[in-house]
Amino acid sequence: MPRDAVAIAVVGATTLIGEELVRLLGERKFPVGEIRLLGTTRTAGRKIDEVTVGLVGQSAFDGIDVAFFAAGPAVSGEHVGSALRAGAVVIDASSRFRLEDTVPLVVPEVNAALLTRAEPPRLVATPSSTAVGLAVVLAPLVEAAGVRRVVVSTYQSAAGAGRRAVEYLSRESIALLSGRGEDDATQVRRAFNCIPQVGTVEIDGATTYEQAVADEVRKILVQPDLAIHVTAVRVPMFFGVAASVAVELERPLGLEAAREVLRDGRGILLHDDRETGAPTPADVIGSQATHVGRVREDPTVPGGLALWIALDSIEKGVALNAVEIAEILIRRAS
Amino acid sequence: MPRDAVAIAVVGATTLIGEELVRLLGERKFPVGEIRLLGTTRTAGRKIDEVTVGLVGQSAFDGIDVAFFAAGPAVSGEHVGSALRAGAVVIDASSRFRLEDTVPLVVPEVNAALLTRAEPPRLVATPSSTAVGLAVVLAPLVEAAGVRRVVVSTYQSAAGAGRRAVEYLSRESIALLSGRGEDDATQVRRAFNCIPQVGTVEIDGATTYEQAVADEVRKILVQPDLAIHVTAVRVPMFFGVAASVAVELERPLGLEAAREVLRDGRGILLHDDRETGAPTPADVIGSQATHVGRVREDPTVPGGLALWIALDSIEKGVALNAVEIAEILIRRAS
Repeated sequence: MPRDAVAIAVVGATTLIGEELVRLLGERKFPVGEIRLLGTTRTAGRKIDEVTVGLVGQSAFDGIDVAFFAAGPAVSGEHVGSALRAGAVVIDASSRFRLEDTVPLVVPEVNAALLTRAEPPRLVATPSSTAVGLAVVLAPLVEAAGVRRVVVSTYQSAAGAGRRAVEYLSRESIALLSGRGEDDATQVRRAFNCIPQVGTVEIDGATTYEQAVADEVRKILVQPDLAIHVTAVRVPMFFGVAASVAVELERPLGLEAAREVLRDGRGILLHDDRETGAPTPADVIGSQATHVGRVREDPTVPGGLALWIALDSIEKGVALNAVEIAEILIRRAS
Repeated sequence: MPRDAVAIAVVGATTLIGEELVRLLGERKFPVGEIRLLGTTRTAGRKIDEVTVGLVGQSAFDGIDVAFFAAGPAVSGEHVGSALRAGAVVIDASSRFRLEDTVPLVVPEVNAALLTRAEPPRLVATPSSTAVGLAVVLAPLVEAAGVRRVVVSTYQSAAGAGRRAVEYLSRESIALLSGRGEDDATQVRRAFNCIPQVGTVEIDGATTYEQAVADEVRKILVQPDLAIHVTAVRVPMFFGVAASVAVELERPLGLEAAREVLRDGRGILLHDDRETGAPTPADVIGSQATHVGRVREDPTVPGGLALWIALDSIEKGVALNAVEIAEILIRRAS
């Protein structure tokens, strides 16, 4: 792979994540030689900053070094193979390959080593933004004290469900505030409401999403037996994700030591509630850190430690993670 | 106390809770003889449906049988004594007396027996709406299986902080949606954001509110040693409260038995996620039940049971609770 003029493809260039990927490649002075924006028949032909979105397909990846996939799992399932066959390294932001044994699931702060092995991977998956935040925060705790169990309740924005969900929240909020009533009475109200269901409810009562977040965290931390219970809730925010997390450490740390471990954790920005207040999702939009606040001992269980996480679900949660993976692979290859 | 023409005072008649109290007294055909609306110097003189709000003070309770206090804890602290000395029974919806040993803290579905003892109480406190929901749901589980530990994350609306907080959320939402930017840049943004701090952060890291909810639940359930960990989060809803609850039962029940216990629980309306979806706060506004959904086993701990609660924080959470207490006391007295 060339170090100075990397040919990039972005599949799903019109999605929230695709747009943020392109923006970050510019902001971080990524050594882009060519950038090819790709989409499905629904979006191909649109223009983004004078560049026309091409149609993803068999020959779309000719000459591409790195292909980012920022469309849904179906598009990844259909077209990642073509990109790999064309010789590109693929970084997939969809859920399609995250839990496949042969595909590394990478959060650079935690397991970048997977990218610098003798035979670097040609297909890398980035986790869901919730799993990224949890992995960044749990990794140093696992190392310092061991983690026996984690109970998580999330506060997730519309952005996680895509651009149309963001627009829907906006329209429905305006409709309610202007007294026009609900935009679509056949749907559960999303504006000024909390919906405790992200994904489909499975037979055991967990949703597909909750199960996936737990599995992704276990995979990233290489803790296959980690007890992690997730309740995922959609809240009426446009961007960002937060989580209330109750951890049970194997070896109790004490509050000050726990704060020290978190403060030193890679990618963590620890807040002092009594000085700056706890981080909120709106505060951390545009930030590339995983923000942690409300750290306190939980005296209701041995080794109990409670904390709050907030991060930019699109930027830190997905796009930055994907770009950082590409940066490491390029440094490795050259 | 007369059974057919009860002289009522409502202190804090212009608050969200005060208004709902007055509405419920009418709706439930409460045997109101006289109704005296009272407020502080800030609100006295206003009119509500042609009735002028009087000033709470020394002689304001003369001839009153039942005084509801729906203003803040400071007003209750200052004036409940006058009401009691005037011979009224006081039902206090503020936090002022909730945790005092000599004051019963009542959720009728759970501990109405406190109201029908040989010497009925003259001062009764109603819990915070979060504690009401938790107590209603935990009571049958404590009875059927014992509860070892509870981990709670809340999703609380602006209404819990009062009418001005509701109006602020509305104004700030409109300002943001209309592109006028934030209403007050010195404040943490509340619209389209989640703030993990309700009350003041104390030295041990919990907020005053989180500590109070835990203490209230322990008191109502008469489980002084119950391990209950609460994280309270303000979300951008106008009304309602929800909670994600992870319970550890002393004696595992199995999912179907747990659902049976909840379905039979007093005041609980159990939802089947796969049929109707989980209850959301917006769905349950105006409902007098505590709604429960997302019931599932939590395999990460012995006896683990997870569930979601949603209730109308003003009506079911406070005003109805207060009116039901009055109804029981009146039946008892006559």
